[in-house]
Amino acid sequence: MAKYSISKLNKVVRGSKRATYDIETINTILDDGFLCHIGYIYNNQAIVIPTAYARKEDKIYIHGSLKNRMMLSLLEAATASISVTHLDGLVLARSAFHHSANYRSVNIFGTVKKVEDPTEKMEALKYIINHMVPGHWENVRKPNKKEFDATLVLEIHIETASAKIRAEGAVDDAEDYNSSIWAGVVPIKQVAYDPVSDTKLPEKTKIPEEVLNYVSKNKS
Amino acid sequence: MAKYSISKLNKVVRGSKRATYDIETINTILDDGFLCHIGYIYNNQAIVIPTAYARKEDKIYIHGSLKNRMMLSLLEAATASISVTHLDGLVLARSAFHHSANYRSVNIFGTVKKVEDPTEKMEALKYIINHMVPGHWENVRKPNKKEFDATLVLEIHIETASAKIRAEGAVDDAEDYNSSIWAGVVPIKQVAYDPVSDTKLPEKTKIPEEVLNYVSKNKS
Repeated sequence: MAKYSISKLNKVVRGSKRATYDIETINTILDDGFLCHIGYIYNNQAIVIPTAYARKEDKIYIHGSLKNRMMLSLLEAATASISVTHLDGLVLARSAFHHSANYRSVNIFGTVKKVEDPTEKMEALKYIINHMVPGHWENVRKPNKKEFDATLVLEIHIETASAKIRAEGAVDDAEDYNSSIWAGVVPIKQVAYDPVSDTKLPEKTKIPEEVLNYVSKNKS
Repeated sequence: MAKYSISKLNKVVRGSKRATYDIETINTILDDGFLCHIGYIYNNQAIVIPTAYARKEDKIYIHGSLKNRMMLSLLEAATASISVTHLDGLVLARSAFHHSANYRSVNIFGTVKKVEDPTEKMEALKYIINHMVPGHWENVRKPNKKEFDATLVLEIHIETASAKIRAEGAVDDAEDYNSSIWAGVVPIKQVAYDPVSDTKLPEKTKIPEEVLNYVSKNKS
């Protein structure tokens, strides 16, 4: 199992027994997400912004307007920290202190560059659409020159990363197991519902199979 | 409607028609969340960490270990930026360019201080448990002195904030409405499932009404 090297930046200190640096595990968590949270520095302050992303091998792509402050700041800093988090459950212990959550969380530290090559840039946009709904790129109208030129695509090369996973029940102090206080887990999941078609579609426009597959795989 | 004042820090520039500074709207989005993403600066780099939180009036509480790097860095910086994001749908347009998401997102900029007063600190811990499951604090064993002393609670006073909300269908270029490409929205929601009780509970331990209410309000 290939792993990311551990440095001060990505070493998980709190709750280190839940940490992993395994690249495949980290990639699976990344591929399960839709939104990431990116940090950037503006006027000496760390600012956090949610944004869509896609992964290709050890690269994360994000995109936005040419004037997007977050993206321009990231380019200037040339490094980025990204967090992707899936909440899987509320862990309700007997004691307030041992309340927790089940989750899968990844922190990435990478170097940032602008994707300039047109082929690579179009490929990145394809990855972003297909990260929303696998295979959907083939269904839609591709970007025209004006749209393409108005889009800034950044590549964040993953230099190092870590994941934290909690996937278990409540863990209480020994003496609390004798109490009559309830403990357990409330499972949480992000689910998709049946597509709502646009009202302005020509009659008999069919919902693409890729969209139906996505919903079917992600429904409650 | 009371609003946060607009500065360079919180002004929404991209997609400003989706922005609001209305305090009540912002509070509703905050109260709907469980995890926030906090940014802090470590070695001149912005790092993003997910964490649980609670809101009381214009204050956000977070808690952690006394040695938590993120919390100690926030205390040192004395300011914090927090992002809370709810994904509500995938917006699948006819054109790749107009793909988007429906979401409710808040960015907070605040000042950070350690909660030292024991009454206020215990109250903050109560808010954090009740933010997970409303009213659940009364069901659990309260922190003992050792647990209480081992917990660091930070108060982030909201100095300014902004929200961005997108809640509509696909919006395409006029000429694309004549095409036969499908467009629509896939609704997304974070849902709760029936509680899974701990296997080590004494027989006949009942699931608290507050937990059942929470699941009932958040189920699919």
